[in-house]
Amino acid sequence: MTETVGFIGLGSMGLPMARRLLDAGYALRVYNRTPGKAVELLERGAREMKTPAETVEPGGIVITMLANDAALETVTLGEHGMAAVLGADGIHLSMSTVSPHLARRLAEAHRAHGSHYLAAPVLGRPTAAAAGKLFILLSGMAAAKHRVSPLLEAMGQGTHDLGEDPAQGHIAKLAANFMILASIETYAETLTFAEKNGIGRMEMMKLLTGTILNAPLFHLYGELLAKEEYTAPGFKLALGLKDIELILETGANSRMPLPAADLVHNRLLTALAKGRGKLDMTALALGVSEDAGLRRE
Amino acid sequence: MTETVGFIGLGSMGLPMARRLLDAGYALRVYNRTPGKAVELLERGAREMKTPAETVEPGGIVITMLANDAALETVTLGEHGMAAVLGADGIHLSMSTVSPHLARRLAEAHRAHGSHYLAAPVLGRPTAAAAGKLFILLSGMAAAKHRVSPLLEAMGQGTHDLGEDPAQGHIAKLAANFMILASIETYAETLTFAEKNGIGRMEMMKLLTGTILNAPLFHLYGELLAKEEYTAPGFKLALGLKDIELILETGANSRMPLPAADLVHNRLLTALAKGRGKLDMTALALGVSEDAGLRRE
Amino acid sequence: MTETVGFIGLGSMGLPMARRLLDAGYALRVYNRTPGKAVELLERGAREMKTPAETVEPGGIVITMLANDAALETVTLGEHGMAAVLGADGIHLSMSTVSPHLARRLAEAHRAHGSHYLAAPVLGRPTAAAAGKLFILLSGMAAAKHRVSPLLEAMGQGTHDLGEDPAQGHIAKLAANFMILASIETYAETLTFAEKNGIGRMEMMKLLTGTILNAPLFHLYGELLAKEEYTAPGFKLALGLKDIELILETGANSRMPLPAADLVHNRLLTALAKGRGKLDMTALALGVSEDAGLRRE
Amino acid sequence: MTETVGFIGLGSMGLPMARRLLDAGYALRVYNRTPGKAVELLERGAREMKTPAETVEPGGIVITMLANDAALETVTLGEHGMAAVLGADGIHLSMSTVSPHLARRLAEAHRAHGSHYLAAPVLGRPTAAAAGKLFILLSGMAAAKHRVSPLLEAMGQGTHDLGEDPAQGHIAKLAANFMILASIETYAETLTFAEKNGIGRMEMMKLLTGTILNAPLFHLYGELLAKEEYTAPGFKLALGLKDIELILETGANSRMPLPAADLVHNRLLTALAKGRGKLDMTALALGVSEDAGLRRE
Repeated sequence: MTETVGFIGLGSMGLPMARRLLDAGYALRVYNRTPGKAVELLERGAREMKTPAETVEPGGIVITMLANDAALETVTLGEHGMAAVLGADGIHLSMSTVSPHLARRLAEAHRAHGSHYLAAPVLGRPTAAAAGKLFILLSGMAAAKHRVSPLLEAMGQGTHDLGEDPAQGHIAKLAANFMILASIETYAETLTFAEKNGIGRMEMMKLLTGTILNAPLFHLYGELLAKEEYTAPGFKLALGLKDIELILETGANSRMPLPAADLVHNRLLTALAKGRGKLDMTALALGVSEDAGLRRE
Repeated sequence: MTETVGFIGLGSMGLPMARRLLDAGYALRVYNRTPGKAVELLERGAREMKTPAETVEPGGIVITMLANDAALETVTLGEHGMAAVLGADGIHLSMSTVSPHLARRLAEAHRAHGSHYLAAPVLGRPTAAAAGKLFILLSGMAAAKHRVSPLLEAMGQGTHDLGEDPAQGHIAKLAANFMILASIETYAETLTFAEKNGIGRMEMMKLLTGTILNAPLFHLYGELLAKEEYTAPGFKLALGLKDIELILETGANSRMPLPAADLVHNRLLTALAKGRGKLDMTALALGVSEDAGLRRE
Repeated sequence: MTETVGFIGLGSMGLPMARRLLDAGYALRVYNRTPGKAVELLERGAREMKTPAETVEPGGIVITMLANDAALETVTLGEHGMAAVLGADGIHLSMSTVSPHLARRLAEAHRAHGSHYLAAPVLGRPTAAAAGKLFILLSGMAAAKHRVSPLLEAMGQGTHDLGEDPAQGHIAKLAANFMILASIETYAETLTFAEKNGIGRMEMMKLLTGTILNAPLFHLYGELLAKEEYTAPGFKLALGLKDIELILETGANSRMPLPAADLVHNRLLTALAKGRGKLDMTALALGVSEDAGLRRE
Repeated sequence: MTETVGFIGLGSMGLPMARRLLDAGYALRVYNRTPGKAVELLERGAREMKTPAETVEPGGIVITMLANDAALETVTLGEHGMAAVLGADGIHLSMSTVSPHLARRLAEAHRAHGSHYLAAPVLGRPTAAAAGKLFILLSGMAAAKHRVSPLLEAMGQGTHDLGEDPAQGHIAKLAANFMILASIETYAETLTFAEKNGIGRMEMMKLLTGTILNAPLFHLYGELLAKEEYTAPGFKLALGLKDIELILETGANSRMPLPAADLVHNRLLTALAKGRGKLDMTALALGVSEDAGLRRE
């Protein structure tokens, strides 16, 4: 457990994940585009680096947890990117929600240096990350998976192995996020249907989570949707837009319509057009209420 | 437990529910429009009657479990209907999925005779009915609820009390069915998205039900959707159409759009146009696969 | 031209149509549920009657121009309805937008009395009615069509004969209204797309109507949509809802999805939920603008 | 009229447009990525060049008519691209359907060399191009517009001036194409609604184009949709997908939902998933028919 690990991206997910690794005894070199996020980690022995390239050791392990394709591409292949340094036997443990085609492209770029790309995006919000309760959707070369398994154990409560294709972990993550986002739309329509017909949102939510929807997803989002509390984002609405756009793009590339994703996309566009990008992504439900003539603002 | 109870409607749900009441020691008078469904019940002491009117005793309890508004209206207010016989202090325990406005109309009609209408539609498929594991969504007058509670205990694992308005139980039922139907659409899109991008339907289903979707609803339907086995209907597609039309009508009457319900409605119409009315309602997923260019027939 | 004609329904369409018949020399007996609409017609020789039944002569011609199925059924078959009086060789020239199945039912009811039902709904707004410029979508028995042709000439600029089935005229009318309503949605999205990207609504409208959309429909609605003037209804939004519901119901009965109709339906429901029922039906465009974050109120 | 003009892109639109310029007396240097398309033009004096760079003269005019953003970017800024040669006072007359943001980027790149970018996409199919009957949607610097006006007159029947912003012509083009594509969807739903209810597609089409839809767009597409003849593409389905994706992307960038565009997008994805990419874009209507249970294959 004394291996030094590079960690790039200290946002609302990356920070608690890095903390779990420190707790588990790993030495960390961390990097974040905007400096200053690492303060607490530095006190516990992490070292903050000035570039992605400095964050990795040849043949080492580097974790990335970033907002989108562009950010991941920059830290990997851009100026001061880490791919060139990572070199032979290095592992890029790529935990962000990014597009399958970027994953394939990065995997190829790493292969040219003798390094391995592992897709390892996660299910769970920041509280789950802090508790080491993430679910990890893993794909890539078997030997590399074996080497990172103690790190995954430190961060997650379970790992799903999706085979060797470096894109599959990301595809599964997009599929899961699609199910989540579309369920929020459906849930919001259901609660608003109840409300418009005389049943309170909270009462309807409890009825559902006490019966057919007794799953963590529906307890968590049901609480937010029933109370209509959207101001403490676990996952910002603007990030939800990025996700649904990746989902739609991946669907379109594979030639399939995703009409439920269109509904979500449109809700998120309207929310952004109305200036709600900093609310939690569940705030897409405001559009459902407003379309029903219920004033929320 | 020696009260005689009338039971009208011995379909795939009504039959196992009636069986549960016999098990609990109730004497039953049963009626079904198409005769012959009651054979097994008769062997266990139930009496088959020739009209709805004969099925009830003045001041007694009558349960209805029928396919749609028209059937419920006929047995209640039609020729040989039971409302006129039920009389003072009688209770109509109305367990079908019907429209809130019919519920209100019947409640008023019963009130004129001194009887009470209780909404008590159920969540659960035939296997749950057979096991006495239904969830019951109850609304109506408190005293009447008290009197029927032993019957509800014989049929269900839990009762949600939605107040005095005789429509509320039905509204909650429609809301729940909407959530179920829309989740099937979303789930089918998710599994097909995975399939089109190289992840098996079964693998994706297990990943989801092992993490965020660990609820009975998603295990049950996930199995059907992953295997694409639609030929043993727990709930026929044509009945799903009836439900979604009640949901859309109730939404429209309360002036709200339900775009996720429109998606389901359109899938069901296409399935019926293609002659799939006798498949399970999850067969709406065939439309998702076919739109993605996957041939199923 | 001396035949006495009954005219039932003096709304924004019926009144100018009746006026055209007076201009053409017909004697009219008129009826409107709410009295007082006929004042101007009475000055020109029309006689106002107290019931639908009084409005017709045995073997005569009666025109109906009413808001919906319920109103048409009432004046025809309800108490003081005209069907019983119309009798042998009478003609019911049914010009309202109503459901095909009501048309079939009324045709049968009339047939029992030896009368004929002609479907003859119209394309055109009140200004077209006033100018005798309606298009008439006619179906029913050939001999009856021949007898009413001078009346149709007085009211319209052209008649499309859709055969003998009394429902076909109404189906064609619903199809045309669907095309109109869906075009308003599409047009509104197009103009708002232009506006959001820096091209004025009026400029975009003129570009389109000067090129690919050089048809009366697009000039008329383009003007309203570009100026966003919805307060002088040619056709009220609440009537638009009735139409789209007939369209969706007819589509569903024939087992076909109509997703573009769902979009319109949802826009109209939202408009009504926001209290816009008295605006022109083009005001469904407000929802397009609001979803794009443009404030209109 | 003796100026030499560069013409890049000799597809189904570019070829007849180039022919019009030869007819008008212009000397042409032509380039097409796949050689051999220019044969007929060479016989009439055009010179075929080997690279985009050779196609232009310093300070000259070059027209581009290409399939998509990538192709336009390549011939302009790629290896052997023409931007560097075009130089001071050169004009790039950009007639393809491309994204507004590429237009802005190219305009800037040209400006750095002292050249001008004019957006000039066109409305019209190949037959209109051959007849010089295109409508041209022009934006960019006034002086440059003046210089190209004789060329535009040779190719089009009218020009709409959308101001100085080099993106506006392209935005207007996308808006118009959106209106066309969404009208095809709506039209197809309307004709199929008629067909499912007993009115022939051709009869319904003639009724509409004889009344409310008496515009070239609806005659042209109505003929194709009524006959369901999709095998002689004026505009291939795969190109329709490109257009609707540009429209959705431009809408999303400006933060607005375009639900009617989603419908079209989904129809086109399904058509491609079913292997229909080489049919005319109106073949999206096959999805409407199939969803209604009508077999077309």
